[in-house]
Amino acid sequence: MVILRENQALLSKIATSDQHGENSPYFDGWKAYDQDPFHLTENPNGVIQMGLAENQLSLDLIEKWVAKHPKSSICTKDGISQFKEIANFQDYHGLYEFRKAIAKFMGKVRGNRVAFDPDRIVMGGGATGASESLMFCLADPGDGFLVPTPYYPAFGRDLRWRTRVQLLPIICNSSNDFKITKEALESAYENAIASNIKVKGLIITNPSNPLGTTMDKETLKTLMRFINEKNIHIVCDEIYAATIFNTPEFVSISEVLQEMEHDPMSLINPGLVHIIYSLSKDMGLPGFRVGILYSYNDNVVSSARKMSSFGLISSQTQYFLASILSDEEFVEGFLSESSKRLAKRHKTFTQGLEKEGITCLASNAGLFVWMDLHRLLKKPTFDEEMDLWRLIISDVKLNVSPGSSFQCVEPGWFRVCFANMDDQTAEIALKRIHAFVVKKGRRNERAPMNNKRSKSFQKNLRLSFSSRLYDETNMMSPRVMSPHSPFPRSPLVQAKT
Amino acid sequence: MVILRENQALLSKIATSDQHGENSPYFDGWKAYDQDPFHLTENPNGVIQMGLAENQLSLDLIEKWVAKHPKSSICTKDGISQFKEIANFQDYHGLYEFRKAIAKFMGKVRGNRVAFDPDRIVMGGGATGASESLMFCLADPGDGFLVPTPYYPAFGRDLRWRTRVQLLPIICNSSNDFKITKEALESAYENAIASNIKVKGLIITNPSNPLGTTMDKETLKTLMRFINEKNIHIVCDEIYAATIFNTPEFVSISEVLQEMEHDPMSLINPGLVHIIYSLSKDMGLPGFRVGILYSYNDNVVSSARKMSSFGLISSQTQYFLASILSDEEFVEGFLSESSKRLAKRHKTFTQGLEKEGITCLASNAGLFVWMDLHRLLKKPTFDEEMDLWRLIISDVKLNVSPGSSFQCVEPGWFRVCFANMDDQTAEIALKRIHAFVVKKGRRNERAPMNNKRSKSFQKNLRLSFSSRLYDETNMMSPRVMSPHSPFPRSPLVQAKT
Repeated sequence: MVILRENQALLSKIATSDQHGENSPYFDGWKAYDQDPFHLTENPNGVIQMGLAENQLSLDLIEKWVAKHPKSSICTKDGISQFKEIANFQDYHGLYEFRKAIAKFMGKVRGNRVAFDPDRIVMGGGATGASESLMFCLADPGDGFLVPTPYYPAFGRDLRWRTRVQLLPIICNSSNDFKITKEALESAYENAIASNIKVKGLIITNPSNPLGTTMDKETLKTLMRFINEKNIHIVCDEIYAATIFNTPEFVSISEVLQEMEHDPMSLINPGLVHIIYSLSKDMGLPGFRVGILYSYNDNVVSSARKMSSFGLISSQTQYFLASILSDEEFVEGFLSESSKRLAKRHKTFTQGLEKEGITCLASNAGLFVWMDLHRLLKKPTFDEEMDLWRLIISDVKLNVSPGSSFQCVEPGWFRVCFANMDDQTAEIALKRIHAFVVKKGRRNERAPMNNKRSKSFQKNLRLSFSSRLYDETNMMSPRVMSPHSPFPRSPLVQAKT
Repeated sequence: MVILRENQALLSKIATSDQHGENSPYFDGWKAYDQDPFHLTENPNGVIQMGLAENQLSLDLIEKWVAKHPKSSICTKDGISQFKEIANFQDYHGLYEFRKAIAKFMGKVRGNRVAFDPDRIVMGGGATGASESLMFCLADPGDGFLVPTPYYPAFGRDLRWRTRVQLLPIICNSSNDFKITKEALESAYENAIASNIKVKGLIITNPSNPLGTTMDKETLKTLMRFINEKNIHIVCDEIYAATIFNTPEFVSISEVLQEMEHDPMSLINPGLVHIIYSLSKDMGLPGFRVGILYSYNDNVVSSARKMSSFGLISSQTQYFLASILSDEEFVEGFLSESSKRLAKRHKTFTQGLEKEGITCLASNAGLFVWMDLHRLLKKPTFDEEMDLWRLIISDVKLNVSPGSSFQCVEPGWFRVCFANMDDQTAEIALKRIHAFVVKKGRRNERAPMNNKRSKSFQKNLRLSFSSRLYDETNMMSPRVMSPHSPFPRSPLVQAKT
């Protein structure tokens, strides 16, 4: 113990701080799953992992392609002639064929309405590594980035931990389906300035993680005007770009940039625009660690490429992906089929939830739904949200992720991943939810609430086996902010309660 | 241009500084090679790359293994059943089979005199990523690490650029074959303290890059006592551990730790000891980006593992390596044969140089020699070294790396890599050197100089086609430090001249 204490003093502030954010319930839920993982036959009563945004629905298509293309691996008799060259390839620009294929794939995913330049493709160790490098390029320690809430829990680790930048929440809430408003944006910016924080940029995920929604063109144009007016960067994390399974169509920041650049009235600086991409979600290959930074800023491309040495993509993997992504016929079929399968799973899952009286934010993308359980909270606080979450983990044996870990300002929301399991497991998850929430027959005849989700909210819910903890009366209490919330009370939030 | 200048102001100090160190001649030489790369048949007059420490001599052994083991790739008909699971595997602990195989391999490379614990194996994006993460764990911006000169040029980028730590040279020189002395170590430490720099550790490469020498056990024990006395870390970069091709045998810091730990008089804290490892050099697989941090400090293991998310090894590559490294018979044969081939190439190459009157530091490891050309300098300055280096690049068309880029304090040394080419190319390189240096027959009868390399120094050399630049008289001038040298004059250096 003496040695351990001594070591603590010997290590860096980074290593001895908890800024890595892994103490969040988001990661705790994973640990719960790890300790008792569900398996259809071997552990049918284990925890089902619904906290992991993986896309496993279309991997069979890739498997079939692989079986037909033995040359795509340098580790086959057919591909071995390339082994030596590829095993030795360590140029941080990446294999040209790989960059070319990635650029083409990025264009295809965005409907070929915009083209990407292979020379602006910078590799990173997953989106995680690519995002961190971008932060290192854009900001000094202490500088701030505006991020609309709710946002991806690991941003704390990925963007902030080692770079020492600050994430400054833009408060979004359910009254307008968590859309970012000009007012909230300006308010977050002004708050930062008042606190003497140098704002270096705005970070968005589009499609949104955790919401599963996409931003419309007008919103993106508003953001583009805003960042140009303030002369700050915009970082668009578009790693779910190919998970669109319903209308409206996805609009990439690259399209908006292209459109506004050609408008002489816009005065847009492309050098402020940066895209994070990955194949982890869109192709379902998180193990391959393919992160991409695409920047319209030459200096960022140059610096980030030097930084890519800290997390290059294995040349074995680059070679394989260059082969498969160059097969345009396959890619088109894959994207189309993957979208259909996501649509189907999303429909089955959300309809299953609706049967239990549970609604989700209407969404058109992503590998998850943003599930509204606020009516199951005894009081509208984050403590209650945590209690409910613990119950869901321990008794319902589903690892879902509580909204608080996404910095959501309203208690009672949960992100539920639906694409990392087979049909049978999804069915079992729904059955468990059914056992958890028993639908009490009669409909609530109260006046509809002032939001889009009011229709389904008319149903009364209560926990099937925990009525001692939750009851209808309490579920109907006005929603107030938790005293533990790090965010100021928002007039918008209060207006909604 | 206005936009570019604006962008500069918008980016971070890291991005706009040149602390990445890529302006060094070490990297410039690579660029020269890139512009006109030698090819046996297609570009026989191009630049031969001797600046890249790659090990290409035994890759055929790996190729043969691969052809016989189609299951080792998840991208073959035989291995496809594992595709889905592996493609999805993103646990930052790594595949257990991979960690186990790496730990065993590390032990085997060190003669099985010491065992490694798979649970202490932390992945990094190459040694580059693993080293940077270790720095982030150990030190805050401004903290210093002692590093004996000459040292690996990319340390500036890998260890310092984003972490903002300082590298503090320990001056080593040719009078004792660049061995680290207790005096130089203490002096560097005291200088740092006098400059108010908090020293957090000592970094060594063993086997040394660029020297190709290994440290003896007594030296390692001295270092271990020193770091324990000062209560600072020791970081041992052992990425060339399996490139030993001659006696003396390699001694790893892990062996010294094991021995001293069992000595109750030593009072050694294992939590101060950290090893960087990789398969880039020992297996010749730099493209696969396998970096390993092995720490005896639990807190470092825990923090660095979280950081490994920024540069995980592709699961496709982990799986392949777990398969091949688990084949113990293959591994033993590979290590033995690789060592023999390195010995042979080293012998051919150094004997070829000796025929031209060029000596290298005696070495027993590595993929390079530390070549002494100080007699070819008009004056013993780093400006002259650069002139000679430019001539070697432009006229001799060999990309070797000048000692100044390794922070060597004595002008005239060059690192020359010999294992990244086939026999024919190595032969052509020697022929070019022969054409460069014309051996003037008569031996110099002057009294032997006061160092070990005096015997071969008795030969007179001069540039074959550049005698206007270099002549015997000047080559015999007393050696003095370049006025541009960032280092203080060392009494030892002067004693040698």
